[in-house]
Amino acid sequence: MQIAIVLYPGFTALDAVGPYEVLHLMPDAEVCFVGHEVGPVLADSGILSITATKSFDEITAPDIVPGELNRHRDRDERPHTPAVAQAGSRHHHMDYLSVHRRLDSRRRRHPARTTGHYTLDDAVALADVGAQSRPDDRIVHAGKVVTAAGVSSGIDFALWLAAEIHGHERARMIQLAIEYDPRPPFDSGHPSKVSAEFLEQTLAQMVPK
Amino acid sequence: MQIAIVLYPGFTALDAVGPYEVLHLMPDAEVCFVGHEVGPVLADSGILSITATKSFDEITAPDIVPGELNRHRDRDERPHTPAVAQAGSRHHHMDYLSVHRRLDSRRRRHPARTTGHYTLDDAVALADVGAQSRPDDRIVHAGKVVTAAGVSSGIDFALWLAAEIHGHERARMIQLAIEYDPRPPFDSGHPSKVSAEFLEQTLAQMVPK
Repeated sequence: MQIAIVLYPGFTALDAVGPYEVLHLMPDAEVCFVGHEVGPVLADSGILSITATKSFDEITAPDIVPGELNRHRDRDERPHTPAVAQAGSRHHHMDYLSVHRRLDSRRRRHPARTTGHYTLDDAVALADVGAQSRPDDRIVHAGKVVTAAGVSSGIDFALWLAAEIHGHERARMIQLAIEYDPRPPFDSGHPSKVSAEFLEQTLAQMVPK
Repeated sequence: MQIAIVLYPGFTALDAVGPYEVLHLMPDAEVCFVGHEVGPVLADSGILSITATKSFDEITAPDIVPGELNRHRDRDERPHTPAVAQAGSRHHHMDYLSVHRRLDSRRRRHPARTTGHYTLDDAVALADVGAQSRPDDRIVHAGKVVTAAGVSSGIDFALWLAAEIHGHERARMIQLAIEYDPRPPFDSGHPSKVSAEFLEQTLAQMVPK
């Protein structure tokens, strides 16, 4: 089972590494990191680089493509394989709208539903394509597409996926192996848990436009 | 504030990336990744590499050194700066016992206490040096040394540390920025939550010796 984790300049490291740490423990998982070229890809911090082990051209039929669905395009501005394009043509822009359009094209079979980091303006974008936003859900599954909330939710998403593929017992073993027994010292990980003022302040100071 | 995240061949990616994703959002954080040489360092999976941006020789007075405290030595077998050696001589083995010896040397001022991934045989090793093991704690703080439980706990640890340094409000903002609102689909992230048989099976199949 080929798992191609998408990297592009400006990616968020935990978006890639959370799912990786879970999914590479699945039986028969063949994980690679895929980028424009083989070599280091610089994350949004400008500090951390993860090495792409394959280029997009080398990935023709991946089974799973975890990746960040960000409304901000790849800083490189070249098109690349989106996280949701496994079954489609090989090169797409991975911007947020193209993701929604793909969701929309499957709408007849699977009602288009999605989630994402709460800063994505998905309520508007989704209304345009007739899809339903579920911004309060951590994981949303619609046909072949699974979307998760922001950043750290990739760990939850990957455990869910491991259970879908290999059953609950295996997923529970992976959770134990990585000691994923979260005990955040605070409870401010979602906009619903903070004041509007606090959210505003956080967005202004910490979340890239 | 210099934050030097230790990488060595065979490191566990989430051990480095969890703290990184939190700590690089602290004000005035100057984060680097430090390894034997500048360049890619291969993780325990044999797949993921993160680039060391500085060599150990370049790091003389880091303020914070997040790193994996693993009983398995660096696969490179060269000595390197341990996560707890900020104030000590510059090069140490980072094996588990040296960590405990350092804890022990501070015992008079700060009772040596530690935690770690539950597979560390710390009950025995710690008894040898007269320190107290607290394997059920997620975060343990003893003087300059903070130890956390395994792998994913690095996120909890880093949020705690951000609050110690910059106050609760800032730490809560970081938690919101990375949407750290964990909702694991299962509850098997700690040995106390599974059967002895399940733990045995997980160790045999998934946790490197």
